Order: sequence, then C-alpha cells, then structure tokens
Amino acid sequence: MRTSTVKGTRDFLPSEMKLRDYMQNRILNVYRNSGFSRISTPILEDIENLDKSEGGENLNLIFRVLKRGNKLKSALDKGQFNNISDIGLRYDLTLPLSRYYASNKEKLMLPFKCIQIDKVYRAERPQRGRDREFIQCDIDIIGSDSIDSEIELIYTTSKALTSVGIYDFTVKLNDRRLLKALLISTGIDESQVENVCISIDKLDKIGIDGLKAELIDRNINHDIIERITAIVDSKIDLDEIESLTGEKQIIEGLKSIISAVRKLSNGTCDIQFDLSLVRGQGYYTGTIFEIESKTFHSSIGGGGRYDNLIGKFTGEKVPAVGFSIGFERIYSLLSTSGFLIPDSSRKIAIIYRSEDFLEAYSKAESFRDRFDVELFEMPRKLGKFIDKLSANGFYGFLVYGDSSTIKQITE
Amino acid sequence: MRTSTVKGTRDFLPSEMKLRDYMQNRILNVYRNSGFSRISTPILEDIENLDKSEGGENLNLIFRVLKRGNKLKSALDKGQFNNISDIGLRYDLTLPLSRYYASNKEKLMLPFKCIQIDKVYRAERPQRGRDREFIQCDIDIIGSDSIDSEIELIYTTSKALTSVGIYDFTVKLNDRRLLKALLISTGIDESQVENVCISIDKLDKIGIDGLKAELIDRNINHDIIERITAIVDSKIDLDEIESLTGEKQIIEGLKSIISAVRKLSNGTCDIQFDLSLVRGQGYYTGTIFEIESKTFHSSIGGGGRYDNLIGKFTGEKVPAVGFSIGFERIYSLLSTSGFLIPDSSRKIAIIYRSEDFLEAYSKAESFRDRFDVELFEMPRKLGKFIDKLSANGFYGFLVYGDSSTIKQITE
Repeated sequence: MRTSTVKGTRDFLPSEMKLRDYMQNRILNVYRNSGFSRISTPILEDIENLDKSEGGENLNLIFRVLKRGNKLKSALDKGQFNNISDIGLRYDLTLPLSRYYASNKEKLMLPFKCIQIDKVYRAERPQRGRDREFIQCDIDIIGSDSIDSEIELIYTTSKALTSVGIYDFTVKLNDRRLLKALLISTGIDESQVENVCISIDKLDKIGIDGLKAELIDRNINHDIIERITAIVDSKIDLDEIESLTGEKQIIEGLKSIISAVRKLSNGTCDIQFDLSLVRGQGYYTGTIFEIESKTFHSSIGGGGRYDNLIGKFTGEKVPAVGFSIGFERIYSLLSTSGFLIPDSSRKIAIIYRSEDFLEAYSKAESFRDRFDVELFEMPRKLGKFIDKLSANGFYGFLVYGDSSTIKQITE
Repeated sequence: MRTSTVKGTRDFLPSEMKLRDYMQNRILNVYRNSGFSRISTPILEDIENLDKSEGGENLNLIFRVLKRGNKLKSALDKGQFNNISDIGLRYDLTLPLSRYYASNKEKLMLPFKCIQIDKVYRAERPQRGRDREFIQCDIDIIGSDSIDSEIELIYTTSKALTSVGIYDFTVKLNDRRLLKALLISTGIDESQVENVCISIDKLDKIGIDGLKAELIDRNINHDIIERITAIVDSKIDLDEIESLTGEKQIIEGLKSIISAVRKLSNGTCDIQFDLSLVRGQGYYTGTIFEIESKTFHSSIGGGGRYDNLIGKFTGEKVPAVGFSIGFERIYSLLSTSGFLIPDSSRKIAIIYRSEDFLEAYSKAESFRDRFDVELFEMPRKLGKFIDKLSANGFYGFLVYGDSSTIKQITE
C-alpha cells in the first residue's frame, strides 16, 4: 500500500501540530475576544451550490464526490457523465457560510459576527505553498452595510496576526466599483471590464508588459490599452479617482476605513489604498482587501464585501463582508523562522522497568498536575535515550525506583 | 440554491460550537497530560489504501472522489467505471495512522503514543445518532506489544470521559482470539468463524433468537448452533474459558488489564470482560474494547489491537493498539442533558450610536483584558434587545455615552 499522502496534502508531526494548535488557539481567542462567535459547517456541500457560486477560478478546482449505489449506476448506464457527482468538497468558507446563514438566520443575533477555522479543498496543480487541503481562518459580519464592519474585520485580523508574532504586513484596500468605474472611463466596452480585472489581478506576476500583452490578446483598442496601463501604473490617488469617477461616497468610505484602522492600532497597522487589487472571486461586490506579508512577499489573507451571495439562498439581499487568514501561509512563515511557542506546557518522561509499570504509572499520575508525563519502558541505552528526550523537547525525566525527583535535561 | 446541509451532515450554531470546542479541548488536554502527542493526517486518502484496509462494513461506506481532467475523461471514454475515482474520504483514523507511521517512523519516538481528533466520513443510511461526517477522538500506541499499552489507553480514555462530565459507563473487554478458539472448540468449520463473529456482534440488536436464525441461514449444524448459543448466552467466565481453550496467556493478560485499570482508577472505572464483544473492523487481531454509556444505552467508544495493519505498509510486523471516543455520541449526551460549561469566559455587549463607533470601539478594547466584547449599533427597542443578549449568554452590557460601567444582566 502507498505510504505517501495524497498529492498536495500533508501529514503533520507532533512538533508541527503543537505549533498549529497554538496558532489556531491564539487566533481563535483574539476573534472571540473581539466579539465573534465560532460556527462550523460540513466539508461536504451540495455540488450545484458550489457550481453556481461565482467562485471564479476556484470553480475549476472542486473535488467532486461520486454518487453512490443505484443513483451512480443509473447515471453511468445512461452515459450521463455530468451527473455522476452530487456532492463536492468546499473550496472556501464563504459559500458554506452564506448557505448556513440562510438556513439558520432565525437562531442568530444580527448582525451576525462569526468565526470559521476549518479545512477547505482545491484541486490545484501542486506547487510550493499551495496545498490541496488547507485551513482558513475566517471572520465575517452578516447583516450590516456599514463600513464599521470593514473596520472591525481589518483591525481584528491584524490583531490576530500580531497575536502569533506576525507584525510585518501591509493591508491593501480597494473597492471593486472604483476600478470598474475607472475602466469604463477609458472608453472600454462594459462587457470587457470583468476580463480586464482578471488580467490586472495578475499584475504582480506578469508585470505591466504582460498586462499589455493580455489586453492585446483580448482585442482591446490600442489607445484604451494605453489609458488602462497608465491608470494601473500611475499610483493614482483617491482624490484623483474621485475627480475622474465622481464616486464620492465610495472614496469617503475607503478614507474612513483607512483612518479608523490606523487610529485603533495607534498607527502600527500599515493599511494602504491599492487600485490594482482585484481578488479572484466573482462574488465580491464592494470593498476588497488583502494582507501582504513583507517577509513572505505574498498574500497571507484576503477578503471583501459580498452583498449578493446570500441573496441567492434567501431571495432577499443581505449585506455581508468577510476576512480570511491563509493559515498555511502564516504557519509556513512561523515554522521556517524558528518561532518558539511561549509558555508551552512542560513534558517529562518517567522511565520504568517492566515489572514496575503500575507503581510507575501511579507516580506519573502524581506529577500530572504540574507536567505532561509520558511513560517509557527502560531503554537499552539510557544515555542515548535521554539525548532523544532532549531533542524531542522534554523538560526532564525520572527513572522509577532510582530517584523520586525530576532531573532536568539541560541542552 | 439549497439551504439545507448535505444529507447526514450538520451545521453547528455558536452555542453548540462553544460546547464542542470545550469538550475537544478538555479531551485533548487529558490526552496530552497523559503523555500522548497530537498528529494530523489528511481527510483524503488513496482509494486503494482504503479499499484494501480490512475495514469491515465501512468499506461499503466510502465516499469516493472523482478523478479530474484527462484522467477522468480517459476512464469514462474507455468505460472503465471502476477506475474513475483515485481518492476517498477516510472512514476512520486508524488506517491513515498506519500509513502515517510507515511514512514518518524515523522522526517519531518509539513507542509512538499519539492523539488524533479529526473528522471522518461514512456514507451511512442517515439515522438518529449516525452522521455521515463526524469527529473521532483517538489515542494509539504503536510499537509495543505489552499490555501496558492497553492499560494506558483504557485508563486515559476513561479520564478523558470523566473530564467532560461523563461518569456512567462500562468498559467492555474481550480478545478476538478467545471467541475464535471457543467457536472452534464447538466443532464449527474454521472458514465459518469470521461470519459467526459478525452475527454475534449483532447480538444486542437481534437477540439470541435472531442469532440462531442467522446461524441456521448459514447452514450451520444444529448441535453446533446449540453449543455456540450456549457459550454466548452463558456469561461464561475467564477461568472456564481457560479450561476450555487452554489460552492461558491471553486470559492472564485480560485479567491483568482489568485489575490494573480498576486499581489506577481507585475502583471508579467499571471494566468487565465480555465474551460477546466482537467489533466490526476486520483489522483487529487481539484485545478489543468498547465503552457503553449506561445513560445512552449505546457504544460511545471502542478500539483494539491491530498488529497486522501497519505491516501492510512497512512490510514488517509492527504491534499497535488504539482507542477511539465517539465524539458525536458524547456531544449528543451532554447537549441534551443540559450540561453547563464551567468557567467559560464572560461576554459583554457594548451598544453604540453610529456616530460614536470609533470611541465605542476604543472603549471595548479597554474591557477586552477581562471580557469578550461584542459591539452592537443601538437597536430600536433596547429592552427587547437586552432580553436577547440574556438569551444568548451575555454577562452584561454598556450603552456607550450613557454609562461607563458594565451593567450585569440578571436572568
């Protein structure tokens, strides 16, 4: 049988899980402390819900679960190969949350401020830093169209990151409607706007020349391409955009969010307007944000407002906005930077000769109010074994029958 | 779009998640304190590994994930309908652990004492108390054939249950080899032994008459059926079994386990030999155990020794034994019995008028060293709103601008 994990998925060793649990607990505590409540949804989601969810590229990355029994047999017999799956694995936590809200709204406090820390799945071409199974840490506020929600989400997320020792990041903020208004002001056909946004989203990877090439491929007029790249390249500021688009209310909102987050964080949270920020998902309708790690040179979180997604379930428009931390990215940051878990509980070993097991176990119990205690049968080479204990983070040990006090292991 | 969850799966509300997180943390702490280390494996597992795993009935309940892209197309085009899935969702945590051990053994301390608290999937016919997505809490010891392992697992599991307020249970203990030896002593054909065990496993549900009927269906000789049912029905004790089978070593082992667990728990853990205990999985090789809740009248956990499973991956025999708590069963027990989480952190509400948001948020921050604080914009009817806070477990509230101290909500 195969001993390796399924492609794009990973096993975690004890020391890795200790760090992951520590990080999850810290983040969860910040979220809870900031007034959010944890919920949970199934990993399995109706395949039609997923397919109709405007998840952008992610829709191509859905793991589909086979129907079972007669339903599978019938679909195969009839050659209905598009109808052999009834369930998929969720690719994010936003679509399931929208379904959850529609299903449970009578039981929830409004606005609903919720936490999700859970696994999601994407059948990506495996590459460094992109797993097929990974954890996202999301907070969302449903039922309020006030920018107070954006402020709470961004500030709380920045607190969650600092709680696990990540300080060196920039929050980038934009509003989808602004970029669209600007693009339309270039004279481009409205039907091309979404596609051009997708190209701009790749600017980090393809550069300004790559962008031009993509726009040429899309048969966009040369003058318009010049205007688009000028806008994207120019670091145009909010006041100029206001004069170009007349979108006074949106601009005021962005300015208020930026100033509030700076104020609440005493200026420690670096938050910047970034017109080139697009975000892949189709369901975003207004503000969008992303966190860039300056150390990692990559996105470690993102989110935005999705005021139309819940309406697909409830039939009536419900405003909503969410912010997600890419847990695997920050885990990777911490685990490679030699981060040490502060105040972690101390573990000791009690070593016993086989005939003494029960007495040694009782002895272990007497230490368990102060230490985590693991029992080991006497090894052949005690010295080598104690080196191993040290390498595995044990604080001390006791050989039952030889000593009644813990001997500390010094590295 | 559908608002209900996929059949057999569930959404969890904030109050439910609070209890579930509390229970998981308590169980995890007992496990860690008792010398076990947490690991994690992917939910996705190679489909061949799953299919070849001797998981008994569970093999019929595997959720299969479709191949993707050209591999799927090619299999469908060729009509290879048995070859359209390459991955499955794990149905338990034992098979993935065996693969994990084989893959990571050089990095682990031996014997390897590990914790898994994770989701598993079974495409069961949905029924009360049987979900298709559920959490198991497992501890396993790999690399030791000593009964010290059984003692540690059983005692630690009983401590984990009492840590979440579950006291009223019986640990039932058996050894597969004893039942087999006794069955063979009745004169039954050896090829029938496994099937008869499966029937005996259902004794709780079908009763002794149902058992007889199944054995008749299996064309077993009348005299042998009488002998089998006499054994199963007779509450035969360990000494009699020893005289009938000569399995002195196994009997001694069981007696030692029972006496050690009783001793370590000061007689509080009710542990009993039960010859009719079988357990469904095919991979068990020796001791098997199950926890029966006297309140729930049903199994809330189970496990056993599986000395041959890891060898399928490593090529060499590695002894192993594990014990799993059925998390959903005990969650159901606690949530329906009105269990209150002790010492849970206290949550307050700060209510603000929209123009005061930023100042109110700063005020909220100043309380967050003592309370979890959620902000709410001033509702239209404050009295009704405060009733709602009370119903949702808030400890107190403050209306920003009207008061600077927390007003406690009395129920």
